[in-house]
Amino acid sequence: MTNKDARTPASTQNATNSSSGEEAGKSIGWHKAYVAGSRPDLRVPVRQVHLTNGRSVTLYDTSGPYTDPEADTDVRRGLAPLRENWIVARGDTEEYAGRPVRPEDDGLKHTSPRGGLRNLDAVFPGRPRQPRRGRTGRAVTQLAYARQGEITPEMEFVALRENVAPEVVRDEIAAGRAVLPANVNHPEIEPMIIGKRFLVKVNANIGNSAVTSSIEEEVEKMTWATRWGADTVMDLSTGRNIHTTREWVLRNSPVPIGTVPLYQALEKVDGRAEELTWEIYKDTVIEQAEQGVDYMTVHAGVRLPYVPLTANRKTGIVSRGGSIMAAWCLAHHKESFLYENFEELCEILAAYDVTYSLGDGLRPGSIADANDEAQFAELRTLGELNRIARRFDVQTMIEGPGHVPMHKIKENIDLQQEICDEAPFYTLGPLTTDVAPAYDHITSGIGAAMIAWWGTAMLCYVTPKEHLGLPNRDDVKTGVITYKIAAHAADLAKGHPGAQEWDDALSDARFEFRWEDQFNLALDPDTAREFHDETLPAEPAKTAHFCSMCGPKFCSMKISQDIRREHGGNRAEIEEGMARKSLEFAATGNRVYLPIAED
Amino acid sequence: MTNKDARTPASTQNATNSSSGEEAGKSIGWHKAYVAGSRPDLRVPVRQVHLTNGRSVTLYDTSGPYTDPEADTDVRRGLAPLRENWIVARGDTEEYAGRPVRPEDDGLKHTSPRGGLRNLDAVFPGRPRQPRRGRTGRAVTQLAYARQGEITPEMEFVALRENVAPEVVRDEIAAGRAVLPANVNHPEIEPMIIGKRFLVKVNANIGNSAVTSSIEEEVEKMTWATRWGADTVMDLSTGRNIHTTREWVLRNSPVPIGTVPLYQALEKVDGRAEELTWEIYKDTVIEQAEQGVDYMTVHAGVRLPYVPLTANRKTGIVSRGGSIMAAWCLAHHKESFLYENFEELCEILAAYDVTYSLGDGLRPGSIADANDEAQFAELRTLGELNRIARRFDVQTMIEGPGHVPMHKIKENIDLQQEICDEAPFYTLGPLTTDVAPAYDHITSGIGAAMIAWWGTAMLCYVTPKEHLGLPNRDDVKTGVITYKIAAHAADLAKGHPGAQEWDDALSDARFEFRWEDQFNLALDPDTAREFHDETLPAEPAKTAHFCSMCGPKFCSMKISQDIRREHGGNRAEIEEGMARKSLEFAATGNRVYLPIAED
Repeated sequence: MTNKDARTPASTQNATNSSSGEEAGKSIGWHKAYVAGSRPDLRVPVRQVHLTNGRSVTLYDTSGPYTDPEADTDVRRGLAPLRENWIVARGDTEEYAGRPVRPEDDGLKHTSPRGGLRNLDAVFPGRPRQPRRGRTGRAVTQLAYARQGEITPEMEFVALRENVAPEVVRDEIAAGRAVLPANVNHPEIEPMIIGKRFLVKVNANIGNSAVTSSIEEEVEKMTWATRWGADTVMDLSTGRNIHTTREWVLRNSPVPIGTVPLYQALEKVDGRAEELTWEIYKDTVIEQAEQGVDYMTVHAGVRLPYVPLTANRKTGIVSRGGSIMAAWCLAHHKESFLYENFEELCEILAAYDVTYSLGDGLRPGSIADANDEAQFAELRTLGELNRIARRFDVQTMIEGPGHVPMHKIKENIDLQQEICDEAPFYTLGPLTTDVAPAYDHITSGIGAAMIAWWGTAMLCYVTPKEHLGLPNRDDVKTGVITYKIAAHAADLAKGHPGAQEWDDALSDARFEFRWEDQFNLALDPDTAREFHDETLPAEPAKTAHFCSMCGPKFCSMKISQDIRREHGGNRAEIEEGMARKSLEFAATGNRVYLPIAED
Repeated sequence: MTNKDARTPASTQNATNSSSGEEAGKSIGWHKAYVAGSRPDLRVPVRQVHLTNGRSVTLYDTSGPYTDPEADTDVRRGLAPLRENWIVARGDTEEYAGRPVRPEDDGLKHTSPRGGLRNLDAVFPGRPRQPRRGRTGRAVTQLAYARQGEITPEMEFVALRENVAPEVVRDEIAAGRAVLPANVNHPEIEPMIIGKRFLVKVNANIGNSAVTSSIEEEVEKMTWATRWGADTVMDLSTGRNIHTTREWVLRNSPVPIGTVPLYQALEKVDGRAEELTWEIYKDTVIEQAEQGVDYMTVHAGVRLPYVPLTANRKTGIVSRGGSIMAAWCLAHHKESFLYENFEELCEILAAYDVTYSLGDGLRPGSIADANDEAQFAELRTLGELNRIARRFDVQTMIEGPGHVPMHKIKENIDLQQEICDEAPFYTLGPLTTDVAPAYDHITSGIGAAMIAWWGTAMLCYVTPKEHLGLPNRDDVKTGVITYKIAAHAADLAKGHPGAQEWDDALSDARFEFRWEDQFNLALDPDTAREFHDETLPAEPAKTAHFCSMCGPKFCSMKISQDIRREHGGNRAEIEEGMARKSLEFAATGNRVYLPIAED
């Protein structure tokens, strides 16, 4: 998305000057820049691409301070708390001691020699901090502020980021059609918004598991994912050191972090679903809210009566959270403790501004199970829970499938929007076929682009390792890039203002053989340049008026340019004078395919 | 697509027994098998996947004799001429001397020391052959036969392959809604059909260029592409040895081969578009028809009055053939010689059963140019030419774009079907955004799946190197697999009979943790297995009741199975006895996540 309205370029210019330096700002390539807001501590990061024709294009940037040469980042110290002053200034929150961190928070036995940790310093070496929460009974959520007509600095930040008026941001949040996930305990984030009125967003999942991976790897995966364009990151860790891993990720993340508290709660009862209790779950939610988790997946829609609806499915229940809750319901033959205690949960989330991501625990796990009774029964319950959350001023989005053939995709978004009062839809894919393990980023990228075009607000990425293994660095990049493509294709199809200017800038560069500009404007400049150089490594090739696909004699762009040069792009003149022109054309020697030497 | 109707499994069984051996046929994994037709020389190749649960799944197979352990293939000798007896038996063709092969056919100077070649033996070491053509004035096309009510062996072959009645094949061809590309000089092919009523097909482009690549590479790319599922291959060579490369590709190809004769014609005039003549073009078409090219892209829709319509485009003309014809029209200020001589061209193609692929020389090359006046003006002319071709009994398909945002895709297929009397649509992508060079297999795979769902019959693949360089082996595989996904996703969305059985078989294997079956059923078994082993290399892991994504404690499939085991999948019983069941469930120790040791 590019900022091209009257206001933004100017302020971008200022930002560029006031940021990573004029030289950098003016040299060819892409650079970190900032759009200045109404106050000195409100600077919106953008990716500024300076072209060889003197123009520049401004793109949305999720990479955080890591790509700012002037920022001094240190993962052991964490990012600067950008939003702290804004939060404190509101005066509706208070710091407090917080619950003590216990060994089991990190999946360690109660008998662990390490014993209980007393404060976060031991978990994270960065500056010691106390958790913050709303003063008694007070909802400190962006939804509450929006309903009161307030435009918070966070709202102004996303307005500049999305190139819309702040009032639009406030009104979409107030209406429940958009969420701005921003826990008061995660002041490090650069605010972003999720809603169909705005750019389609992409989430990347990270997280260690019992099987493999480490804390450092997860933090690196998070910064890597945001570098390539992830708008939020979910930490789905399930092994040891869950608490510590999450703390490191949060303190270093410029984007909102989501989790599934149920995973950690299950670890605390050694994986025995039936031993889960509301108290253990609630304590885990508070633990994570105090750390700063911005949104939480809650599978409160998996109700006892729905479990039998999955009995005749081809692939049963494929959501981890959904299967855990189903196991609990069966073991006790009781209604879900998440459903029963949903209102109390709302009070907790409202006190930290944690956003609900109401999980689709009964989503289809195969083409055969798409759009079935179990799936839509749960969706209706999510609609009911969305209305309750709204009563408590808790921001809410709704999770969606899964595995769905193309002809059944639209029904998913249409039903969700109707049943959930247009709350933001957040879908996993959907995968449009089951037959391509190792390529599910593609089977799902197809469904993701379509459902986003039709109104889905955020897409949860799928990597090539889906169904097979844990994604490595390359898989994370492939997943993010694939989903950025799906999201941008949807922004184009929705006619999002400014979206096409990015495509136009790249196509202009392509037509004018500005190879370096093509690379710098590409979603993945490194790979585009590398692929080009594989066939035509020589530097001259970067200015050549042809590419290796067709070779010099067959370049269609070249002749199009000649047509334009001959006839000036004035159709009337072309038609009137074509005969005369054709003679001149002949006079030029009719060399429409100039050998590279001549350029 | 799987064969599951009453008839086919039986005949497949016979085929398996009569083919690559019972042992092979019965062992776990996938094997080449054949479906027996009504005559001994009519055996339809299939990919038979034998599962660990004793079942087997039959999949469409494009890989040719190369995957048959009993077939003895030698690229220097070429494939056996499967169809020769069928062609000869029709008695409507004759062998003749054919035009002499000249040095310029291989892009060599007239003064070349090599001098003129006198016959194909020097070009291809395989058995000497004379070209064949219809007896004077006789159209020897599958369209002509279908209109006469005849069901040819080729039609029976594709009927078995598509699992439909032969009459359906005949009627779709007769109506012009499908084509069966099969030049009488390409007897080596295994017949296939292109039409919306049938499985969506995928074409892979190969071809050396002035810049790089060799004959051996191109032949290897062709076999490699068909191994992964390419239904046809286009040889777009533009450098030297065009004639020889094509001969080697044709003699070794089990799938129809397409070309763009204009490329070779331009080579013959040293790349000077204005020096092209109808005679040179016609001679090149005959040269290629005698070799056995099954379908030819002809840019006869690029008319003089349309060239000015491209003057104000962002990316002008991006089709090589389109730009060549536009240059010729401008240089001479004359109507296109292809348009002017179209009827004579029809007579030539009818004599060899070469299928028209009417090229979209004015297709959009950027999101900005999609669905514009130039594009649709040409499409209307293609509709006119399609009706002329039909008068001459020449099979015809229509080529489509290109770069098109999602919301403008449907208009393309709807207009084409209306204007071209439902002739098969054959599209390149379309690419749904311009911003992702190096990932255009994905930007276009999205558009390809959608346009195929809406009725496109064949998809021309796009590789990751599109816009950047020449595809290598890996790029060809990635392009083909991506497009097989798009095609199958479309078959599912169209509700193609049997299409979903492939997905169901794989999802069953997934739910039952039959890892080997998942790999063997996968579109790309090698990569699926490799990705799994990266995280869980140990053999036991292949029978584990969990995968590395969630680890043993979090496997949702596991608990779904427990639910099913507990409640037998009988919902009534589940609802009635859930309370009682829940006690039994507790009695089992509630161990829903069994550690791997227990399995």
